[in-house]
Amino acid sequence: MKWCRFETQAGPRYGIIGDDGFVTEVSGDPFGEYRQTETRVALGDAKLLVPVIPPTFYAAGVNYRKHVTEMAHRRGAEPQFPPAADIGYRANNALIADGEAIVVPQDATEAVQYEGELVAIIGRQCKHVKEDEALDYVFGYTIGNDVSERNWQRGDRTFWRGKNTDTFKPMGPWIVTGLDPDRLRVTIRLNGQEMFTYDIKDAIFSLPHFISRMSRYLTLYPGDVIWLGTDGVTENMKDGDVVEVEIPEIGVLRNPVVRER
Amino acid sequence: MKWCRFETQAGPRYGIIGDDGFVTEVSGDPFGEYRQTETRVALGDAKLLVPVIPPTFYAAGVNYRKHVTEMAHRRGAEPQFPPAADIGYRANNALIADGEAIVVPQDATEAVQYEGELVAIIGRQCKHVKEDEALDYVFGYTIGNDVSERNWQRGDRTFWRGKNTDTFKPMGPWIVTGLDPDRLRVTIRLNGQEMFTYDIKDAIFSLPHFISRMSRYLTLYPGDVIWLGTDGVTENMKDGDVVEVEIPEIGVLRNPVVRER
Repeated sequence: MKWCRFETQAGPRYGIIGDDGFVTEVSGDPFGEYRQTETRVALGDAKLLVPVIPPTFYAAGVNYRKHVTEMAHRRGAEPQFPPAADIGYRANNALIADGEAIVVPQDATEAVQYEGELVAIIGRQCKHVKEDEALDYVFGYTIGNDVSERNWQRGDRTFWRGKNTDTFKPMGPWIVTGLDPDRLRVTIRLNGQEMFTYDIKDAIFSLPHFISRMSRYLTLYPGDVIWLGTDGVTENMKDGDVVEVEIPEIGVLRNPVVRER
Repeated sequence: MKWCRFETQAGPRYGIIGDDGFVTEVSGDPFGEYRQTETRVALGDAKLLVPVIPPTFYAAGVNYRKHVTEMAHRRGAEPQFPPAADIGYRANNALIADGEAIVVPQDATEAVQYEGELVAIIGRQCKHVKEDEALDYVFGYTIGNDVSERNWQRGDRTFWRGKNTDTFKPMGPWIVTGLDPDRLRVTIRLNGQEMFTYDIKDAIFSLPHFISRMSRYLTLYPGDVIWLGTDGVTENMKDGDVVEVEIPEIGVLRNPVVRER
């Protein structure tokens, strides 16, 4: 099933995208009670929004080996693999939808880079979840681009502007349910050119492991998102570029890059 | 004006606390349109909730000199003052209301400590705010206790369980508007004994400075909270303790401590 969130005259609404390319508006939300309405709109005519506004926005950060080794190599540093699945955070102010512009502030350096990621969306409240039951609490999956200003990321005491500057968190285009994350593959393209491709299953820590470990201390709530980290070396994006993250079973998250003048 | 959020049969509602000790239920919320209803309940009979669920939960972290120097001294380390107002984050799962128990997980060490703080609540959406206009965007103030498991805080790659374990973020009891933060003083008591007291104005970075710097990159939204950090050395809390944070112009945030067995 394919769920989206889109703009209507009455405000944001959830919708179900059918195989016929039409969105059926839903009253309620996919995490609780809902019913399909009579209102339908062609997907091409729908103004898609960020598919969910998370109560808490979790991010694995470093979770793939090539990303750790090649980024460390580039800085002339020793690679340091995370010893445990310590989850991180991002912030809702930075979320934008598919198609919206990543706006780079005037005083950012050139080192504004993409990170193409799988995103899991929690469907049911849970705590103390076992690893082999963890995926039962996942509602579905979407795509994220964890845009990062590398000098702020390294120089500031927190990731506040390095990762959470407005527009630095494209997420979408929609949510697909019923997928096996370990069979998914992520491809990142810059201006149509393939930059990197990797398999979700090569993660240092799997999604079930994260959910199990997190939920030992933290209650997870419907709509919480977990971004799973990226692999490979990442490159700078400049004004006028278009960045795409594709997971074929989900779709393509495509965003232009604009530098503020 | 004093705003609270409380449980009703129809779910959580905002209320206005009058000088007569009664809460007038409000339809809507204090950040948008609202009207006072005919429903009134004695404050003592109201089940108070966390006074606001923030879209984004910001925290200054280290922002007072004695906290930096004395905590470093205790660890045998050199004190390191933050060179810039780089804001941090906490997570909504950890929020509890006044009176609710701080529940310490079985596997936490003894080093579970309080941090009594002033909390500012944003009232209006803003970006690129000048320092001398920053307080115009603050709706009001409440009290926070940034409970921290010091070994997890130092040993993990992020603050996920060190700071954000469920129940580790008491906030309340209510929101007071019209205050000058620089005239406020925070007092922390453990089992009735005063542990530390400090003046908000002694912060390394002021609230207006944080709002101005944050809003250069981040849009702030109504309901976003900014926790302003604590001063002084902090002590361990054990099963059966009661911790209080008082700011006389606001009230007292009081929470018992329970260790899971």
